[in-house]
Amino acid sequence: MSEQVRPEQRAREQALVEQVVASFDHAENARLTELMQALTRHLHAFLREVRLTEGEWNAAIEFLTAAGHITDDKRQEFILLSDVLGASMQTIAINNEASVNATEATVVGPFFVERSPEVPLGGDISGGAAGQPCWVEGRVTGTDGEPVPGARVEVWECDEDGFYDVQYGDDRTAARGHLFTDDDGHYRFWGLTPVPYPIPHDGPVGALLEAVGRSPLRAAHLHFKVDAPGKRTLVTHVFVRGDDFLTRDAVFGVRDSLIVDFVQHAVGVPTPDGRHLGERSWAGARFDIVLQPRSV
Amino acid sequence: MSEQVRPEQRAREQALVEQVVASFDHAENARLTELMQALTRHLHAFLREVRLTEGEWNAAIEFLTAAGHITDDKRQEFILLSDVLGASMQTIAINNEASVNATEATVVGPFFVERSPEVPLGGDISGGAAGQPCWVEGRVTGTDGEPVPGARVEVWECDEDGFYDVQYGDDRTAARGHLFTDDDGHYRFWGLTPVPYPIPHDGPVGALLEAVGRSPLRAAHLHFKVDAPGKRTLVTHVFVRGDDFLTRDAVFGVRDSLIVDFVQHAVGVPTPDGRHLGERSWAGARFDIVLQPRSV
Repeated sequence: MSEQVRPEQRAREQALVEQVVASFDHAENARLTELMQALTRHLHAFLREVRLTEGEWNAAIEFLTAAGHITDDKRQEFILLSDVLGASMQTIAINNEASVNATEATVVGPFFVERSPEVPLGGDISGGAAGQPCWVEGRVTGTDGEPVPGARVEVWECDEDGFYDVQYGDDRTAARGHLFTDDDGHYRFWGLTPVPYPIPHDGPVGALLEAVGRSPLRAAHLHFKVDAPGKRTLVTHVFVRGDDFLTRDAVFGVRDSLIVDFVQHAVGVPTPDGRHLGERSWAGARFDIVLQPRSV
Repeated sequence: MSEQVRPEQRAREQALVEQVVASFDHAENARLTELMQALTRHLHAFLREVRLTEGEWNAAIEFLTAAGHITDDKRQEFILLSDVLGASMQTIAINNEASVNATEATVVGPFFVERSPEVPLGGDISGGAAGQPCWVEGRVTGTDGEPVPGARVEVWECDEDGFYDVQYGDDRTAARGHLFTDDDGHYRFWGLTPVPYPIPHDGPVGALLEAVGRSPLRAAHLHFKVDAPGKRTLVTHVFVRGDDFLTRDAVFGVRDSLIVDFVQHAVGVPTPDGRHLGERSWAGARFDIVLQPRSV
């Protein structure tokens, strides 16, 4: 708090904090009391530290109102806000404590969809979406090093124009799918080489990013969600080594351990599965996944 | 933060906070950098202290979404949220530091309307609204004790059913008005004896209050906004001594210095201005107002 706040003023502000905290003493749900009292203390500490003006308070109310009005069943501005403040990633970090060798989690993002198409091992999840073909393979193991057969590996990504299928608004399903690991824990599929893309930035969160000189671009990535019996569900991304946005991802989702080589192959270089790609180049990446036991 | 968070986990969480803080380093507006960096630190401190679960994060997103969807040009759920967290009152406190003898400020509330009717000194602002007639008088002075002639005294309040005119949705104007102090700084008008009423509680904020066992009722009050040349604008309430809700006002707006006696007078007791009220009882209150110089 600034030095010039007089003791009697400080006491008056602190008395208000204590009054609000006490108002949450009697929730039937003790966890709700804990959450609201902590929220009250941190919110008031913020207001008092910055000496928020009434004009700034009005701007905050207007910001939240605009965020509420642009939010619908396809657009979620409050998740974007949480994302660009790093609050989504911090919540992920808190709830997925780093284990010795387990794959790190990152944000789920707004484009996950239930009931994606199943593809066979080595199948193509692109569904006609535009982009460079990309062979992705890896092995799913436990933290004990044992392979995890039958793990459900769900993947989704944007096309080369930076859009997910659901953003086109025409019910297409593309660049998403799921498959199951083989008896030795291996998976492999054809997808698209990830490219950077902006989070939706035509709303209040985009205006905030612009005002503070931040890019709305996310580092190029491919989403993974991996489920297996007895293992903790892992939601993560794989990132592309060398991508310009690794150090300034709009939502702070990058973890060094999730960056892998996407090796570029010229036109005509044989693919691992003998697929004929005609006049197209392709890329290849390997991403091994280590799942924690469910109980950890 | 809970004791069981391991040092490496704590370091990882702290590194994320620092990364988000640094992302706001380059706003052109230095105050925006200050605000966003402080918001980031306090928000992350909250998340880490309570170890927010992913389910609780989802509930918060849903709460904000519902608040956004119920908000329109007549209903402002984000202001209500700020109010019930004491954030509105804290912002008022921060921006209206207590002066030695000046009248204390409190929240403006959502029912202020520009361009209220002017009434003469001793006139009636009720505009046909139902309620016990109440004679209110007082004197406006500066902190130097000098009377303030020509001060614009704006007042507004709910009717005996607890509703402000604008809540009826039929364009009525009632129980609001403004008048000007006389040469000696005095004002006087007929209004209605204030009654407790609930803030709108059929939305997510109301559900929150119910979940924590708090009443949505506000202590009975009459709103004042007082403007005079060379003086700082004062927005405040006068509260009714003895009211049950003084110690549990839903928005924490009560200040001891703003509580005055509303003296009940039986049917037939003469009024100060000789007004004939027939078979109605009435009340009387005196509220003297001390304005700070504008420059303080």
